[in-house]
Amino acid sequence: MSTQKKVAVVLSGCGVFDGAEIHESVFTLYAIAKAGAVYEIFAPDVNQHHVVNHLTGEAIEEKRNVLVESARIARGEIKPLSEFNPIHYDALMFPGGFGAAKNLSTFAFEGSGCTVNSDVMKAIIGANKAGKPIGALCIAPAVIARVLEHVEVTIGSDAGTANAIEKMGAKHKITTHGEVVVDSNLKVATTPCYMLDATITQIAEGAENIVKAVLEMV
Amino acid sequence: MSTQKKVAVVLSGCGVFDGAEIHESVFTLYAIAKAGAVYEIFAPDVNQHHVVNHLTGEAIEEKRNVLVESARIARGEIKPLSEFNPIHYDALMFPGGFGAAKNLSTFAFEGSGCTVNSDVMKAIIGANKAGKPIGALCIAPAVIARVLEHVEVTIGSDAGTANAIEKMGAKHKITTHGEVVVDSNLKVATTPCYMLDATITQIAEGAENIVKAVLEMV
Repeated sequence: MSTQKKVAVVLSGCGVFDGAEIHESVFTLYAIAKAGAVYEIFAPDVNQHHVVNHLTGEAIEEKRNVLVESARIARGEIKPLSEFNPIHYDALMFPGGFGAAKNLSTFAFEGSGCTVNSDVMKAIIGANKAGKPIGALCIAPAVIARVLEHVEVTIGSDAGTANAIEKMGAKHKITTHGEVVVDSNLKVATTPCYMLDATITQIAEGAENIVKAVLEMV
Repeated sequence: MSTQKKVAVVLSGCGVFDGAEIHESVFTLYAIAKAGAVYEIFAPDVNQHHVVNHLTGEAIEEKRNVLVESARIARGEIKPLSEFNPIHYDALMFPGGFGAAKNLSTFAFEGSGCTVNSDVMKAIIGANKAGKPIGALCIAPAVIARVLEHVEVTIGSDAGTANAIEKMGAKHKITTHGEVVVDSNLKVATTPCYMLDATITQIAEGAENIVKAVLEMV
């Protein structure tokens, strides 16, 4: 039997403003592979909240599906999140991007009163109950904070977002580039990435650090 | 004045089957930044040849614009390729993906008889005439081969593609993972990346090696 650790990575579309942040997603996959682990990619099979023209920043009249668009980052190698079973994986990870706050949850619109997609909720609760570590980058920690009570997380230093996270009963810790907050009790690791004004090398570093933290908890 | 080298990176959409290959694009940007250089991102402002559902591999009835979709990888920081002036850059690079063979050129459909988008053609000829090195990954070397006569390139080891490239008057050299072919006369560097069956770490390595080779020719 293989001794390689296997990580499930959940994407939320393809593009920072309406889906998964592409750099964070790619560097998460890369860091997992570099660490000698393997990954499988999942996304919920639902429509995106909306589609944003990434050149102008404006929402456009179009429908796109989260699983179908996430498949662009995954090069077609992706499964619906409804098929995720924590028993087959050692860890669960969520790259960021507005998709986490618009497609995986309604955090971008409803803040601390947000709802979480039911497949995402089941994945987080299932992984947590099975004792599997969870990692979340950028704004994705807000989703974890909505599901796991009293979890300690970071989204960097944005006061409004930190406040909304604390309103959900979580603890927020201010961090800067590449830092990882580990809640060793709940086995949750988080890092700010593009929630800070970051360079692409800082994103790579953040992804590498959080993957290390997650794999150490396996 | 800054002594940082500045690289123009040309994208061809967002997704391996109808646009720029996402991993190759991100690792090219990352390798440029890691080498202490800076990048600016461009794409032609034209419709994609088509849109492919990356989950099923099938073309779908939809229109998407190459510049607008490339902006997803660029996080909005992108310009139309018509604005590229080689005088302001030290090098020009083309990540791969079918977008290079479907949107930047018609190589995917017409092989050695393909046409090249006029902004792409002008960018390559302009950079070449100004003595600026050009790098191309994956299938993008086919575009260079169509524009620069007798250039020596690699797309890895696919015999059919190599044959089409030689029909255009170029020389093709067989390579494997991470290898870079440098035509020091024409200042062109190429590497196979996902034209081989590659892992994500091999793509990162290929991108790092070609960026090094390109920057050495500046």
